[in-house]
Amino acid sequence: METFQPVAANGLLDRRAFLRGGAALAAAMTGYARAEPLSEAPWSKGPGELVPPYGTPSKHEKAAARTLSNPKGEPRTQHARTPHHLLQGMATPNGLHFVISHAGDPEVDPAQHRLAIHGLVKRPLVFTIEALARYPMVSRFTFVECGGNSSPLFSPEPIQATAQALHGLSSCAEWTGVALSTLLEETGIDAKARWVIAEGSDSPHLHRSVPLSKILDDAIVALYQNGERVMPGNGYPLRLLLPGWEGNMNVKWLRRLELAEQPAMSYYESRTYAPILPSGKAYRFYFVNEVKSFITQPSVGYGMKGPGFYEISGLAYSGNGRITKVMVSADGGKTWAEAALQEPVLAKCFTRFRIPWQWNRGPAVLQSRAWDDAGNVQPSRPEIIAARGQGSRVAPVTAFISQHYNGPTSWAVDANGGVRHVYA
Amino acid sequence: METFQPVAANGLLDRRAFLRGGAALAAAMTGYARAEPLSEAPWSKGPGELVPPYGTPSKHEKAAARTLSNPKGEPRTQHARTPHHLLQGMATPNGLHFVISHAGDPEVDPAQHRLAIHGLVKRPLVFTIEALARYPMVSRFTFVECGGNSSPLFSPEPIQATAQALHGLSSCAEWTGVALSTLLEETGIDAKARWVIAEGSDSPHLHRSVPLSKILDDAIVALYQNGERVMPGNGYPLRLLLPGWEGNMNVKWLRRLELAEQPAMSYYESRTYAPILPSGKAYRFYFVNEVKSFITQPSVGYGMKGPGFYEISGLAYSGNGRITKVMVSADGGKTWAEAALQEPVLAKCFTRFRIPWQWNRGPAVLQSRAWDDAGNVQPSRPEIIAARGQGSRVAPVTAFISQHYNGPTSWAVDANGGVRHVYA
Repeated sequence: METFQPVAANGLLDRRAFLRGGAALAAAMTGYARAEPLSEAPWSKGPGELVPPYGTPSKHEKAAARTLSNPKGEPRTQHARTPHHLLQGMATPNGLHFVISHAGDPEVDPAQHRLAIHGLVKRPLVFTIEALARYPMVSRFTFVECGGNSSPLFSPEPIQATAQALHGLSSCAEWTGVALSTLLEETGIDAKARWVIAEGSDSPHLHRSVPLSKILDDAIVALYQNGERVMPGNGYPLRLLLPGWEGNMNVKWLRRLELAEQPAMSYYESRTYAPILPSGKAYRFYFVNEVKSFITQPSVGYGMKGPGFYEISGLAYSGNGRITKVMVSADGGKTWAEAALQEPVLAKCFTRFRIPWQWNRGPAVLQSRAWDDAGNVQPSRPEIIAARGQGSRVAPVTAFISQHYNGPTSWAVDANGGVRHVYA
Repeated sequence: METFQPVAANGLLDRRAFLRGGAALAAAMTGYARAEPLSEAPWSKGPGELVPPYGTPSKHEKAAARTLSNPKGEPRTQHARTPHHLLQGMATPNGLHFVISHAGDPEVDPAQHRLAIHGLVKRPLVFTIEALARYPMVSRFTFVECGGNSSPLFSPEPIQATAQALHGLSSCAEWTGVALSTLLEETGIDAKARWVIAEGSDSPHLHRSVPLSKILDDAIVALYQNGERVMPGNGYPLRLLLPGWEGNMNVKWLRRLELAEQPAMSYYESRTYAPILPSGKAYRFYFVNEVKSFITQPSVGYGMKGPGFYEISGLAYSGNGRITKVMVSADGGKTWAEAALQEPVLAKCFTRFRIPWQWNRGPAVLQSRAWDDAGNVQPSRPEIIAARGQGSRVAPVTAFISQHYNGPTSWAVDANGGVRHVYA
């Protein structure tokens, strides 16, 4: 039987330990017991529940729900955050995909809904959902992340909150729809067009300006999410999908795309997603969700239960491409070990990373750092604060708010296995 | 503007047409109209619905539900079939993953549930769910398919039924859990062990015998399905996952694994999944779901709406490996064209295939045929009938029933765009 050799301080073990075999964990594990005559559980003694037409999670998994910022639907934005600390793998199930709705989820009738493409085109066209569904489709797994995800980490003091509260405005799904390049073949493009203004059919008519080059590169009009039609909160019956670009631009309940020479200077591009930089200039028209990672297990609210073996696990992703490496530290960044990346590793998609860890009640500070194939590395927290500033305090949120935080998240583990959010 | 050149009879177009650009479909399309001043839809005029903690599909998508063979839960098996004709991409959303429950879905309490590994092991062990969740995890996208999926195609006459009714006992998800090889490192393995008998905690205690070699190769004790905990109908809180092997062996609500020298000769291996071959011998202990494909759009119940352009789309998969090629015919198998395969193409996983099609109201018979990287090709229907026999008529099902049908499915399109199931 192999003895584990730590590969970095505070008990990080080689990521390949379990691929080699011969690595029994018995000495490290708790929670098992020798087999004994099996008893009959109550649920084994009679017929079970009816199989429903549409399945839902066990009643024992009520905790695996989105947290709501505005559960009574008062006339302001509603946020529903993904419970990352309770999930695994890389796909976010549709019921738990994050949602931000500025005036609730409009109840769109797909038979009446239309998508217009107009402005600087040769043939303005209006499409029914049925017509769109006949076009050639493409599918891709990709994350969508709000530009404001992780903004509590701009706060001068670390806010004690779960991975769900800090990072829950980011999710990943297999999206299927029609490439916008295909639809723009239908309309033709006027040579003067540089921007596409996308507008939703929610009551605020949320609209954002997208460079035409992105639209022609990999934008999709998405009709399906993880195989089924897009969820109401994610834009049913169709949304714009801009792989790797900030969530708000992926306009939901999409009703029109206007090709134009100039951007619209809409509310969300000139105000919310245009924070003031330390230089005094606005950080405007910066779209990409850059390379990022965070540890989901263990984390605040998902701590340790006794000493021994654990797997440290988390998510890494980049709006610029594919994750190439994730390093993990258990001593606040002094020593590092490389995590295993779960296949398939796809561009602009969540990548699950994992590394084995032996915890013997010693203090530890867990951190991750990711690299992408465009040559980017996740910055340190001081680096991103220096570049972007501390942000500003915005009511009713009790944190300093800015956009596109992609620095590290640090979890401090105490002797009892409790986890706190720290800056390290 | 490019004119499409058919690459096979009855209007099949080159799969790369839409990658090259310059291929406008306007002449082929219906359902669009020139843009006009946009009207305000009712849902754009006021606040929308409350964002819920757990999202569910639009009320307009009620048709995208599983069909139930036993909706009142009478004391017999319940089947819930995936609506393939209404889905896209390769992931099956958890609410629509197929379920077969022989006595309903047991309502298992994860805090009380235990998994025992015993028999020919060195250290019999009992695991809580919490203990299992600390082990190193693996994730993989893989299909699960009932051995009886597609059995209506053994009928001497083609049964008029949807892709859901014919092929809906097959689904695909990202499963995450602990490799059984890891757990067997913990227990140790007695040198005499050759089989593992897996038993569920449903009231019939469904059990199946699995060769130890498969268990050590790629078997998983799955705790998560598409990111969240396994659905009640799919084995909550844990199931055995045997990538590419018949569904019934992927024992749900798993409560024990007994290592043994011989198989158990359980009901499902000696009776249901042991049909009598034309030679008179039982087709027994044959586990793999071999290479297969079927067209999901168009299909029965999802026909054509006027002439013009369509995309033919479907699913291909093999329990022996990765799909390497799918050919599509629009003339009942006389001429063929190669379909595009949607990335990522993963082993033992659904692969979505697509090919563009120009339909001008002519009669057509659509078929697909798949190849895998283990060198297998989907057989013709006469080939599989000759090998396996016609099966036997089993009440209350009105079809001839046998196992592991992986021949083609043929959809005949009439001049009105209606689709019928035919043998061709």
